[in-house]
Parts: sequence; structure tokens; C-alpha cells
Amino acid sequence: MASPDVTAPDLDLDRQMAFLVEADRLKSVVRATKLADASRHENSAEHSWHLTLYALTLADQAGPDVSIDRVIRMLILHDLVEIDAGDTPIFAQQPNTQDADERVAADRIFGLLPAPQAVAFRALWDEFEAAETPDAVFAKSLDRFQPPTLNLANGGGSWTDYAVTEDRVRSRVGPLIERGAPTLWAWLSPRIAAFFGR
Amino acid sequence: MASPDVTAPDLDLDRQMAFLVEADRLKSVVRATKLADASRHENSAEHSWHLTLYALTLADQAGPDVSIDRVIRMLILHDLVEIDAGDTPIFAQQPNTQDADERVAADRIFGLLPAPQAVAFRALWDEFEAAETPDAVFAKSLDRFQPPTLNLANGGGSWTDYAVTEDRVRSRVGPLIERGAPTLWAWLSPRIAAFFGR
Repeated sequence: MASPDVTAPDLDLDRQMAFLVEADRLKSVVRATKLADASRHENSAEHSWHLTLYALTLADQAGPDVSIDRVIRMLILHDLVEIDAGDTPIFAQQPNTQDADERVAADRIFGLLPAPQAVAFRALWDEFEAAETPDAVFAKSLDRFQPPTLNLANGGGSWTDYAVTEDRVRSRVGPLIERGAPTLWAWLSPRIAAFFGR
Repeated sequence: MASPDVTAPDLDLDRQMAFLVEADRLKSVVRATKLADASRHENSAEHSWHLTLYALTLADQAGPDVSIDRVIRMLILHDLVEIDAGDTPIFAQQPNTQDADERVAADRIFGLLPAPQAVAFRALWDEFEAAETPDAVFAKSLDRFQPPTLNLANGGGSWTDYAVTEDRVRSRVGPLIERGAPTLWAWLSPRIAAFFGR
């Protein structure tokens, strides 16, 4: 292949690189969840990586109409809006403006990309948020499943910090996990019960 | 679907969960590269996420025989061995035992999984390390390309910390980037020259 002429700027590549450097800021968005060793809070970039590993490892929990590779693509992108909108802890009061804030963030952040790619990434994020397609339902299950597994490993984590009851944990994470990955909920549910001392 | 009997343990799922919790330790492996805003060093988990985003965003830089989804799977797994073997900065002296240490780490870490999955993940990691297939060549290019883009954003980063010359930067990252993604090297090369003041 011929060497590109570096004096002719590749505007699409420049936009892609601006997006990738801006995305680096996700590493500074701190979540309520702590690492498994409780040493510090998790950030949204490493959380996103961990979720892609959950998807790859637990692929056999997905229904036959789920594409794990599309699930992984969704999970890579799913938290980028937090660069502008911040992370909203699941046990905190949800601000009324959260959905609107995240849509504005998606407009700006995906809008850094060349137009066709901005549209494609935005569509994947919208699909995840809507949680209606089989891929999105499974991706959402994993997003709800991973934090409790860290809380169990580190002795309470965000459950302790937010002083939540077992009922509240179950109502906030149970339905979405069970909808997309019933066996994962069956695995998790007795462990939540044991943690809360039943 | 019938509710699984929680009194009958799912041994495969238990092993997968042990692997996923162990993988959390990658978030504590600190790299030589700093974040784009220079606020701290990057860890290998968030680096892995960032690389998957590079693969998704720069997919049009891959040749027609590259499967981006396989590249992404490789990148999700590629640094897990560092949990045991540590990260070896590219500008530091490479220990003679590095390859052996990483293979021992791969045996242990992938060995936490049920056997068929351990074999599949290990094969993907071996393929990445060998850097011979089109997917692995492209994945390796991205792994070499991302750190310089952070160094350029944060004003020097590991180049400054290791007091490396421009020639050493070029020889350590250029060939592998150019092999798998020549246009990315054409984009990066004049920017390295500008940084080093040519």
C-alpha cells in the first residue's frame, strides 16, 4: 500500500483521534462501587473493561438470539456519556435531569466523530439505553450484575456506604439481571441473602 | 425457563466467577503511561478498555482480512497475565524471564476457568502474543499506538520519565504500528517529530 501523503491531512482520522483522547476522561469518572480488594473506588473506564470480560466469559448465559460481539461493542461505549453527565450511583437519588443530561452528553461526545460513525455509535448507545433488543437486555443484565459481585468480594462496598437494605438491593438489581440472565440472578440471589444475614 | 435449583451448585459458573473477581486485580497494575491529562498513571484495566475503543473507532484502518470483533476479544484479554507478571514498560530493561513469567501467569489465570474456556482464552492470548495472524498484527499495532497518543496529549509522559530519544521511540513503536496500521504510523510519525523538536 502506498504511503499516505502526510501533508494531506486525514480529517476523519483527526476527528477519530480527538474522540479517543477525549474518551480518556472516562478513566477519571469515579463510581460508587469499590474494587474487589476494597482498596479504592472503581472508575467507569475500568468498569467498562471488566464488563466486556464478563460478557466474554459469561456468553453462555445469553439467549441464542444474542450476539456477544454486539453486546461487547455496547459495553465498550455504554458509559462514555458519564464524561459529561457523571456517574449516578444506583442507590443515590436519581436526578430528574439524568436522561436529558446523558442525551446532551451523547450528542457532544459521539459528535466528535466523523458523521457516519457518530450515527452508528449513537445508535448502539441508544439501543443499550432502551434495553429492548436481546443484545441490550443482556448487556443491561451484566451492567447490573457486576457491581454486586464486587460488593460481595469486598465485604459490602456501596451497599454499606449507602446503608441500603436487602430489599432495596433486590429491587434495584434483581429484575434487570433476571430478565437478561436468569441463571446469574439464581447464582447471585442466595449470596445477597447470605450477606444480609438471612 | 425453570428456575435453577440453587442447592445444586453450578461448578462452571463458580469457576467463571472466581476468574472474573481475580481479573479485577488488573485495575491495580500500574503502567508507565500517564492519562491524557497527566493526572496519574494509567492502569492496565482501563488501558485495555481504551484499546477496545481504539479498535472499534479505527476499524477502517484494519485490512479486509481482519475481524475487529476478534481483535476486540484479544484486547480484552491481552494484559491479564500482568496480574502475576506485572507490566514491563516498553522503555525499561526487559527482564530475561518476562516471556516465561507471562506464560506461567497465563497458565494460572486462564486455568481458573472451566477447561474448554481456559483453552479458548489461552489460544486467543497465544495468538496475540505470537503477532502473526492479521487479527493479532492489528491488535499489536493498536497496543503500540495508544501510549504515544497519550504521551502527545499529556506533554511527554513516559518519554520524559524514561528520558528516551526520538530514535528510541521510533525503533520501539514504529515497526509494529506500521506493520498492522500504516496510516496510523503516517499520522503519528510527524507528531513524534514535532514533539522532539525537529
